[in-house]
Amino acid sequence: MAKLKQLGFDSVRVEPFEMQTWMRGEESAELISPFPQPLEITSLGGSVATPEQGLEGELVPFASLAELRAAAPGSLDGKIAYVGHAMQRTQDGSSYGFYGELRRVGASVAAGKGAIAVLIRSIGTDSHRFPHTGQMNYQDDMPRIPAAALSNPDADQIERVASRGQPMQLRLKMMPEVVGTTESGNVIAEIRGRENPEEVVIIGGHLDSWDLGTGAIDDGAGVAITTAAAKLILDAGKRPRRTIRLILWGAEEVGLLGGRAYLERHRDALEQQLIGSESDFGAERVWQLTAQVSEQAQPVVDLIGELLAPIGVARGDMDKPGGGPDLIPMVEAGMPTLRLVQNGTDYFDLHHTHDDTLDKIEAAALDQNVAAFAVFAWLAADSNVNFRQ
Amino acid sequence: MAKLKQLGFDSVRVEPFEMQTWMRGEESAELISPFPQPLEITSLGGSVATPEQGLEGELVPFASLAELRAAAPGSLDGKIAYVGHAMQRTQDGSSYGFYGELRRVGASVAAGKGAIAVLIRSIGTDSHRFPHTGQMNYQDDMPRIPAAALSNPDADQIERVASRGQPMQLRLKMMPEVVGTTESGNVIAEIRGRENPEEVVIIGGHLDSWDLGTGAIDDGAGVAITTAAAKLILDAGKRPRRTIRLILWGAEEVGLLGGRAYLERHRDALEQQLIGSESDFGAERVWQLTAQVSEQAQPVVDLIGELLAPIGVARGDMDKPGGGPDLIPMVEAGMPTLRLVQNGTDYFDLHHTHDDTLDKIEAAALDQNVAAFAVFAWLAADSNVNFRQ
Repeated sequence: MAKLKQLGFDSVRVEPFEMQTWMRGEESAELISPFPQPLEITSLGGSVATPEQGLEGELVPFASLAELRAAAPGSLDGKIAYVGHAMQRTQDGSSYGFYGELRRVGASVAAGKGAIAVLIRSIGTDSHRFPHTGQMNYQDDMPRIPAAALSNPDADQIERVASRGQPMQLRLKMMPEVVGTTESGNVIAEIRGRENPEEVVIIGGHLDSWDLGTGAIDDGAGVAITTAAAKLILDAGKRPRRTIRLILWGAEEVGLLGGRAYLERHRDALEQQLIGSESDFGAERVWQLTAQVSEQAQPVVDLIGELLAPIGVARGDMDKPGGGPDLIPMVEAGMPTLRLVQNGTDYFDLHHTHDDTLDKIEAAALDQNVAAFAVFAWLAADSNVNFRQ
Repeated sequence: MAKLKQLGFDSVRVEPFEMQTWMRGEESAELISPFPQPLEITSLGGSVATPEQGLEGELVPFASLAELRAAAPGSLDGKIAYVGHAMQRTQDGSSYGFYGELRRVGASVAAGKGAIAVLIRSIGTDSHRFPHTGQMNYQDDMPRIPAAALSNPDADQIERVASRGQPMQLRLKMMPEVVGTTESGNVIAEIRGRENPEEVVIIGGHLDSWDLGTGAIDDGAGVAITTAAAKLILDAGKRPRRTIRLILWGAEEVGLLGGRAYLERHRDALEQQLIGSESDFGAERVWQLTAQVSEQAQPVVDLIGELLAPIGVARGDMDKPGGGPDLIPMVEAGMPTLRLVQNGTDYFDLHHTHDDTLDKIEAAALDQNVAAFAVFAWLAADSNVNFRQ
């Protein structure tokens, strides 16, 4: 708030909402047999704790979520499931949705087979000894069992032991807790439009980050990129027709809580939310432009595409909804989006780990992102076409 | 022992020695002001503990060990010294000696200025959030203060805060302890020579590794390379004139204890220790051959060089003592050495960290090392020249 006011934006404010807050506690795991081996694990967000003395059980390996799903009910009674997968790097990050399902649903699937805990290979592409955290969920009709991620090198080790057919015994201790209801909020700043200030173009990133790292790439970068883009426009001294609304979202990581709160609060002004784009995919360069807008708005998107081509941005699908996770609730309510797709080849090396730190960010790549967002925000806000229909 | 016997080597045995054993305990650090920030630290090997409740103090930044040395006595009374440095990658690893001095002597230098603890930038070249451990020593005439290493990204952060001139307050807790006298040993296996079995050519790596990682590159790789090279010769079914002695050294990391114990035990047979070479610089390819041998042995080294040139090994200095750390006591006692210098460009990314794991090793690079050691061990042991004079 202080920074945004100092930068000179209009209508700087917080739109608060309440959330249930989960906090990581002490956590550790070790292979007990066939040989002792400390393992690098971390609790998945939202996991229940183990008993205070920890728990022990046979570790039963599965190559994938599909293989776990195929296990017989009761076959994991009293045991701990280990689940691997084969996530690979992709430029557009599209493998995250597919492989990430293991993180989101793995605990309840394992519990359905009788497991007392689940340990997954990290949803990440690096080969460093950092486990990747991230939110998980429980099905209401299944026992809630502790769920943790294992670093990829440790997962390799588990799979090597498993490939020799050696039975494995694991000790696991995790002491996370739900600390209760706390206040979060979306921090909002605007460049008020000169003709139709009630009409809004949304840009932004999210303020929250996972506790293990410092949140430099997820999503300090997005906050910085979109704030800098808005500041460029502000400093140009010319106001667009419509309002540019910079939203620094709260509580994205734990279930898009800021995005949902925004939809609830602005339900009566949905038609005025013309188009949005969020920066939430790290700090690498934008390489592609995708959008889903009305026929009459297509020329604006074309112009954005022309202006961004010289800085390395190619045209992608023009019927693709989705301008970033915090906009999902608004997209479901009908808001058009444009996405400036960053190169995510290395994103899942750092995402949700201790290693999400500022040294990973290249300033020149941020500049390219700022330029792209400035072009989008200005042209969308200064146009008079309706992006919605 | 079991593995070496199973492989078919002669005279498999342990030469035990005693050591003082230090063990890491709970450890944590956080910046308290100008803002709260958990830091990734680890105790340096041999460090004393903090009080059980931890300690707090102003963190005073120094750019280098030289700058710390230039501080006035008493200027750090009640404070904690932070010391940075500018270690860069080198192919031959030669920067380790220079920059590593900070780790070895930093605590006593800081104590001499009145500091209550010292925190150093990791002696490492990576930009991941792993602190690098390693042995440190205390001067007898200085107070013993806790000494820890900070991961490079965390060190960057400390230096950014320092560059703004903001005073920093640090909380540090480390609970290592000396657990007493324990037994270690050098594990030895031989290919007994057919003509002069009392004459010995030494190869090997060290068995111990730092506790944070699994010791795959430091020095599982060296153990594997030299054992495999000896096994190649054994399986060729032809014995060399002299004995090839494979020594898997104990307790290298904490002060070359195995190397010193070997010298003590074999003092009466020094003249028969003809030449040695250790593999203790990771798992990358050998790129250079250096040696220090007698004039008459030069043709043998030349032949080794000729045979290794096709697999990428260039000739280096021929007046360079040092065939690996565990041989230092023997070199000081006059033993010639040959070194198969591995590419160490990336070695200090992993060295002494959690990230020293098997996934970092490329099998084909190990093969090249095995070939180089097999050539050296066979030609040195099957020759009849005196390497010593």
